[in-house]
Amino acid sequence: MANAPTEAASLTPVILGPKTSRGEKTRQRILDAAERDIGGRGFSDASISTITQEAKVAQGTFYLYFRSKEDILRELVLRMGRRLRRHLTLATTGLTDRLEIEKRGLAAFLSFVRENPNLYRVVAESQFVDEETYRRYYHDFANNYRQALETAADAGQISPGDAEVRAWALMGLSDFLGRRYALWDRETPIEAVVDGAFALMAQGMAPGAAR
Amino acid sequence: MANAPTEAASLTPVILGPKTSRGEKTRQRILDAAERDIGGRGFSDASISTITQEAKVAQGTFYLYFRSKEDILRELVLRMGRRLRRHLTLATTGLTDRLEIEKRGLAAFLSFVRENPNLYRVVAESQFVDEETYRRYYHDFANNYRQALETAADAGQISPGDAEVRAWALMGLSDFLGRRYALWDRETPIEAVVDGAFALMAQGMAPGAAR
Repeated sequence: MANAPTEAASLTPVILGPKTSRGEKTRQRILDAAERDIGGRGFSDASISTITQEAKVAQGTFYLYFRSKEDILRELVLRMGRRLRRHLTLATTGLTDRLEIEKRGLAAFLSFVRENPNLYRVVAESQFVDEETYRRYYHDFANNYRQALETAADAGQISPGDAEVRAWALMGLSDFLGRRYALWDRETPIEAVVDGAFALMAQGMAPGAAR
Repeated sequence: MANAPTEAASLTPVILGPKTSRGEKTRQRILDAAERDIGGRGFSDASISTITQEAKVAQGTFYLYFRSKEDILRELVLRMGRRLRRHLTLATTGLTDRLEIEKRGLAAFLSFVRENPNLYRVVAESQFVDEETYRRYYHDFANNYRQALETAADAGQISPGDAEVRAWALMGLSDFLGRRYALWDRETPIEAVVDGAFALMAQGMAPGAAR
């Protein structure tokens, strides 16, 4: 990716507007509006006109910061990734044991999805608008996750195992539990879901193991 | 769902055409074309005109069998679910041990995704066209899965645990591994992925467990 500057340039949204703190506030306001608008009505029904109305800025202001609706969707996916990572980091600060981090991280992820229901739609829709952005979103997560699992296995905090397979398997586990228990069902207590899922990821389902 | 006939009726595509074997062949040909077309270029770019061209039938023939592009997408999701279930059933015929079924089933799922790369796009796009169809696709799978896990736990083939949470967690595990190792990466041997994932689902990651 680092060897493909042209492609990378076309994928990375450029901050076009003035980099003043006031400009940055306007930019964030447009992003917030786009998240609600695209998350709520979907990418094809959302428009630059509905986004700028929602953000209470003139339509021309949009183009000071973004090139197109596709451009702002890419930026939303990147922002969502940064926000989720920050949320997970804060939720697990001070913890050193990997299994403890997994458990706390899953709870934090589920609560994040309940608070940010637009996450799924915006990220999922990006696969049909710009698949590279979508793949990169998951690959970036998986790379960090794989490294953390390798470090934990080296330290004996978890058993040895294929860290890349584990990373994707556990991302999928969180993703589907997020859909089922945070996006579609907002009532089941998150703790119960986390307990069940943590037992699976820590002990597996084989009978007779100590648990 | 059984108590909501009106809703169910509006969700279930009606076979409009003559139920002759020739009519059924034409219908399947249109479905095959729609799968390639929607899977390849996406729902918004696919059209009834491109689908009927691909199927080599007159455009009016489409309306003998389907009401709209939305209608055929719904039917494709249902067909994909049936096809995947049949594939998994065939792959695990004769097996009685749940963990063995899980392992063989995961391998069968990954090979199914490699052979049917349109699966993901068609199912994933349905969430933006008809979310109820999309949810039902996963809920139907989860219901069957949950019952199988409960039966296996009762029989002592797997440890006791929250079968609903396990079902969604394991569907997510398969889904993401399918994306990573069957859809995006068509070269990594499936056996290696299955071994790593099976170790996780059977034994978990806690250190010191017998494995």
